[in-house]
Amino acid sequence: MEKLRYLNLDKTDAFKKLRDSRGPAHLKDLLNPQRVESYSVPAGAGLTFNYAARPIDDGVLASLAELSAEQQLAGKYRALVSGAVMNTGENRMVLHHLVRGRLGADVTADGKNLRDFYEGERKRVSEFAAKVHDGAVKGSTGKKLDTVVQIGIGGSDLGPRALYLALKNYARAGGMEKMRARFISNVDPDDARAVLSSIDLERTLFILVSKSGTTQETLTNRDFVIQAMKEAGIPGLDPGRHVVAVTSETSPLAKSGDSLDAFYIDDNIGGRYSATSPVGGVVLSLAFGGGQFEEILQGAHEADRLALESDPRKNPSMMDALIGVYERNVLGIPCSAILPYSQALERFPAHLQQLDMESNGKRVNRFGEPLGYPSGPVIFGEPGTNGQHSFYQLLHQGTDTVTLQFIGFRSPQDPADLLTDGSTSQTKLNANLAAQIAAFALGKHDDAGNKDFPGNRPSSLIYGGKLTPRTLGALLAHFENKVMFQGFLWNLNSFDQEGVQLGKVLTKQVLSGEKIDPVLGKYAGFLGISR
Amino acid sequence: MEKLRYLNLDKTDAFKKLRDSRGPAHLKDLLNPQRVESYSVPAGAGLTFNYAARPIDDGVLASLAELSAEQQLAGKYRALVSGAVMNTGENRMVLHHLVRGRLGADVTADGKNLRDFYEGERKRVSEFAAKVHDGAVKGSTGKKLDTVVQIGIGGSDLGPRALYLALKNYARAGGMEKMRARFISNVDPDDARAVLSSIDLERTLFILVSKSGTTQETLTNRDFVIQAMKEAGIPGLDPGRHVVAVTSETSPLAKSGDSLDAFYIDDNIGGRYSATSPVGGVVLSLAFGGGQFEEILQGAHEADRLALESDPRKNPSMMDALIGVYERNVLGIPCSAILPYSQALERFPAHLQQLDMESNGKRVNRFGEPLGYPSGPVIFGEPGTNGQHSFYQLLHQGTDTVTLQFIGFRSPQDPADLLTDGSTSQTKLNANLAAQIAAFALGKHDDAGNKDFPGNRPSSLIYGGKLTPRTLGALLAHFENKVMFQGFLWNLNSFDQEGVQLGKVLTKQVLSGEKIDPVLGKYAGFLGISR
Repeated sequence: MEKLRYLNLDKTDAFKKLRDSRGPAHLKDLLNPQRVESYSVPAGAGLTFNYAARPIDDGVLASLAELSAEQQLAGKYRALVSGAVMNTGENRMVLHHLVRGRLGADVTADGKNLRDFYEGERKRVSEFAAKVHDGAVKGSTGKKLDTVVQIGIGGSDLGPRALYLALKNYARAGGMEKMRARFISNVDPDDARAVLSSIDLERTLFILVSKSGTTQETLTNRDFVIQAMKEAGIPGLDPGRHVVAVTSETSPLAKSGDSLDAFYIDDNIGGRYSATSPVGGVVLSLAFGGGQFEEILQGAHEADRLALESDPRKNPSMMDALIGVYERNVLGIPCSAILPYSQALERFPAHLQQLDMESNGKRVNRFGEPLGYPSGPVIFGEPGTNGQHSFYQLLHQGTDTVTLQFIGFRSPQDPADLLTDGSTSQTKLNANLAAQIAAFALGKHDDAGNKDFPGNRPSSLIYGGKLTPRTLGALLAHFENKVMFQGFLWNLNSFDQEGVQLGKVLTKQVLSGEKIDPVLGKYAGFLGISR
Repeated sequence: MEKLRYLNLDKTDAFKKLRDSRGPAHLKDLLNPQRVESYSVPAGAGLTFNYAARPIDDGVLASLAELSAEQQLAGKYRALVSGAVMNTGENRMVLHHLVRGRLGADVTADGKNLRDFYEGERKRVSEFAAKVHDGAVKGSTGKKLDTVVQIGIGGSDLGPRALYLALKNYARAGGMEKMRARFISNVDPDDARAVLSSIDLERTLFILVSKSGTTQETLTNRDFVIQAMKEAGIPGLDPGRHVVAVTSETSPLAKSGDSLDAFYIDDNIGGRYSATSPVGGVVLSLAFGGGQFEEILQGAHEADRLALESDPRKNPSMMDALIGVYERNVLGIPCSAILPYSQALERFPAHLQQLDMESNGKRVNRFGEPLGYPSGPVIFGEPGTNGQHSFYQLLHQGTDTVTLQFIGFRSPQDPADLLTDGSTSQTKLNANLAAQIAAFALGKHDDAGNKDFPGNRPSSLIYGGKLTPRTLGALLAHFENKVMFQGFLWNLNSFDQEGVQLGKVLTKQVLSGEKIDPVLGKYAGFLGISR
């Protein structure tokens, strides 16, 4: 294996060359049908990543390929999947790829083969789900369980929720919907209360998800739910028989006797990368069946394999990462929007927002030294066509440029479409998507200033046949791997999140009655917390 | 009334002074309990706007007060509410304040007093809702209507949806929930299909919302729903008796005989400002009763009245606007996050994203000339505490600064809270909120780079007792008025949205089979549209 070295982005020759070279021409001068055809790479599971409308040309691409070699992107990824300690801050491996399949060397910890461990847990989850579905596991009052409620926050919420919503309609249309799912995340009591008011406790299974077993919000919401079960006054209702845990083997939750079962992850799976572990697997297997969840993993594994390619022209997530860094660090674009033309992906941008901003929102390199250049951008997004009637105004005619990531599918998830005015709704949806890409890139001059479109607003498109568990898995892994490669490019640790700690410490101070900063005390007082 | 003049921001003396002056000190040097107490102003309906943790000092505030006078903010607002043609691009008045109450002169159009018109429609809506609630209006098969589905997009969706979600739990806890509401917005057929699969058509009333009566998505979804009713095979089910329209009096929808009733708005109410018109009023009055909707209007009117103050120290939305422009145009901050510590406000950031980015995402001034300085920022956000476990990492430790707008309430909407570890969930929620403000502003040094918090990350806080219809109305109006004042400061037209037009034109070209740009044709082909 090649020897890895860790250089800041601005110390690489390729970056200096990119920074000092003239930028590419206006997109309206770059774009032609041949470029649209050729700036394209398969992204796994039948998906294609097209980057023709990103602000690059062959010269920039050549330098970006040099940059990928200089920063050893493929080599670092191969080291990561083979168990290198890539999360240096926390001294951990980074093994979310391994839950989907093996890509590198065997990875062991304390003599345990971790691929076997992850695969074993997946099978246990699948078997448990089957038992719930066939009624072998019932509620404590003897009723069939038809609802599952995930209690978790951050990585234990956003990814699983986004994937559940992405497949709910697909499963319903295909007769694969086994249970409905709900999610409680916020410590705001109104969140738990709203979910509790919409379910039948006797028919509900709660999944308590916390790797450490100590997350304040999640433990509070567990207590909230158990209290509600006790207060419900239902004879025979036994809270412990309505709860399973997803946690690490060493956590307090794992040892608790208050649950029906527990499924395990370990510290090598970061929260925001855990949707394909039991953190997402339990709720998705219960909702749609273990086979559908396995499809997600297979799609993700396909994308993970493509990411091994050294040549960015054959590696969609690496190409996406490289162009993104060019946009951020050479062109100075501070924000990126995720724009799926699929209502099923309504919460996918929120998950990618976490994935990207929590991974690469860092101001120091992997050695703890200030970077001296911008790293992770702000990520936001909503489904199209909705966004078109909202914030697209700024994207088209604002003073700042935002990079756009479009996602689209040729077919709807439910075949029951409607033909009006000579086209289906899906065709209308996709006509809008194609039109937006062209409008953003090409613009259109008008002498009236408020009707003038300057164009040259960059975008890429990931597209496929239909949003299925397999394409969803590939889509998820594409973005995970893009974020990883960008972390390598910026020479930072994408896998810790020390930025969440200070708030936790100060919160505890407020709640414990310790002496606190008087400014903090004022704000607490405004919010009804007297000290 | 003072004579109004329209100057670009960078032509004002106050802005030049601000730009050339030294910026304020680090927030940890500025913040003390006395400042936290005094940088504060009532925001209507019991809300308070606190700006102590924004990056300004008394010197900056003095210059911002000069800027507000030089740009005649209060005078322009007074002209707007009195019927001046402030939407110059479309030659329209801007009258959303007038649906909440009168603030200026009588406004008439074609001899019609528009306050009377708006108030008359509100009363018609309220009476209609009462008839549905008491069963005088029933479904076509004789069943009581218990579900309302709003079909609309953009301003006809985001605002009403955000307000509905904000009050759903409040109404349930208080026994004021009259009907449940659902929303169909996206032209994606999976959106309509998912809603249709969750409702009982015989008990559902659809609200078709389109001011022009020509919105592609909304008409397509109307046809989708009517088709579903026809195909349901329910004897006696008459689609026309399950639909009401909200539209302008001159639109094709108003003339259609296919609906039970129609409620009217006019061209002086912009889509993104229409949540307090019948666009939001019909669905909210049906869901919660006309009295609750009126409470929203009263709260908004209170905030609107405060916005008349010339002194920014007494005018919360004007102060918010001025500081925001200082952050954007002097400090160079490109993004702002909306962070409500209330799960009920889960979609409020999406509404504000539209409100702000569609209003001020403009690159020309009101005369159509290029601005030459940044205007509207990117707006995004999610509820806390959820965001803390997600993108807050970047907010704390990223390379770019983002301005933060926190929102919090002393009490939950549902009093059924839980005490664990000595505190309620609501107290835990608010302890987190106070802790975050302090952590962002003050930071905390650590020798380990990845654990170092630089601080000086600015935020403001709007807080109140409880999220009720009245506080919600004031909150909404605060942001509407902030956006308006920023438009005046940037000298642009916040009330048109020409940036949405080009996409519409190109979409029509794709769908109609006209000759299209070959690049556009390629993208359409990828998405299954062959030409």
